[in-house]
Amino acid sequence: MKVYALLGGPTDLWPADIKGKFLNAKKAGDLIVGVDRGSLYLEELGITPDLALGDFDSLKKADLAKIESNVKDIRYSNPVKDLTDSELMLHTVFEDYRINSLNIYGATGGRIDHFLINLLILLNPSLRKFAEQVSIVDKQNKVIFFNPGLHLIEKIADYPYIGFASLAAIKDFNILRARYELHHYSGDYPRVFSSNEFLPNTSQFEINFKLGMIAAIYSKDVNRFHNL
Amino acid sequence: MKVYALLGGPTDLWPADIKGKFLNAKKAGDLIVGVDRGSLYLEELGITPDLALGDFDSLKKADLAKIESNVKDIRYSNPVKDLTDSELMLHTVFEDYRINSLNIYGATGGRIDHFLINLLILLNPSLRKFAEQVSIVDKQNKVIFFNPGLHLIEKIADYPYIGFASLAAIKDFNILRARYELHHYSGDYPRVFSSNEFLPNTSQFEINFKLGMIAAIYSKDVNRFHNL
Repeated sequence: MKVYALLGGPTDLWPADIKGKFLNAKKAGDLIVGVDRGSLYLEELGITPDLALGDFDSLKKADLAKIESNVKDIRYSNPVKDLTDSELMLHTVFEDYRINSLNIYGATGGRIDHFLINLLILLNPSLRKFAEQVSIVDKQNKVIFFNPGLHLIEKIADYPYIGFASLAAIKDFNILRARYELHHYSGDYPRVFSSNEFLPNTSQFEINFKLGMIAAIYSKDVNRFHNL
Repeated sequence: MKVYALLGGPTDLWPADIKGKFLNAKKAGDLIVGVDRGSLYLEELGITPDLALGDFDSLKKADLAKIESNVKDIRYSNPVKDLTDSELMLHTVFEDYRINSLNIYGATGGRIDHFLINLLILLNPSLRKFAEQVSIVDKQNKVIFFNPGLHLIEKIADYPYIGFASLAAIKDFNILRARYELHHYSGDYPRVFSSNEFLPNTSQFEINFKLGMIAAIYSKDVNRFHNL
């Protein structure tokens, strides 16, 4: 099963067709998940989430009541807690719902601590095994995650740029058959290898590494003065 | 000397009074720096940077010509290069201009690989010694950086939230006399400790750690539906 989850990040960073994405997901029988204020945004889009999680403490009583009356499965997190809302969501969908693909929207922008929690969450040892099933998407970026091994990086239409971030210490990182190759890079702190490209007439290249986690960041330019 | 630098990130994430900030800096004799498209944005705000750096390859010829005729010190980076524009900027201002404080705007949002380059740049061993002189500011966040040692975290008006991100492996991290204390945390991957608060009637608390780098992320809510 696939999951489409909406978090509470700034709505002006949503992909332009987010309502269509969620409606299509609903039609296809995929699981729709709202995290905290994301649950309310889904209701406002006319889409009732199948699962809602959060402490909901930033919501008005009437908004929370609406979510509580509509949503079948609600999980309340504790504001003073070990698990963040995002961690609770990942554990719930992968362990209780046994899903195999998770697309996350509303996870970028806004408070930088919130964004970093979402970006770095898969480094948590109990969540690393799910890394390659997760993507974080906003109007100008699509981030996917890789555990150690050999991976083919596939071209995605409309994303001209591809960068790689080692999210933690990394061992023997190689980028092969791309515009900018990298050979046997090891480092003990996070680092970004930005603005790579596919070679002409190719639609994939290879990365491989022995230890660590890589985020592949596909991106595109957007009109800077027009908010979608 | 203080430096105020503008990078090419999305203008809708600028603090509301960015023009005033740069005008005040100019009056005070501080150094104004434009990085790549940030140089053009400064010109558009009516402020000629003292120093401009970048490969400028995304600028129109006429715009680049304007910058070249107005700006005294221009440093061209090589698009296929070891140093990113941001790294070139940090080396230039700290080593050539010998400044002691750097405020960076336009470094957040947009392409996630670009943002991460800016956030993680101080982990570069040749730049770590400057970490505590740098801040990254946007309309809802102010990020400052700490090297190992004992530091007092000061309350900043209008920023109700404070989170800490260990940007790399960290050893013996403590948060003392804050709403949520942390004791002897060590970890080998980056992690975020979000949403801390100052105790009532206090305006500072302590952090200390033995190895690694901490980003302190001050943040506030902004009206999500209104772009400043």
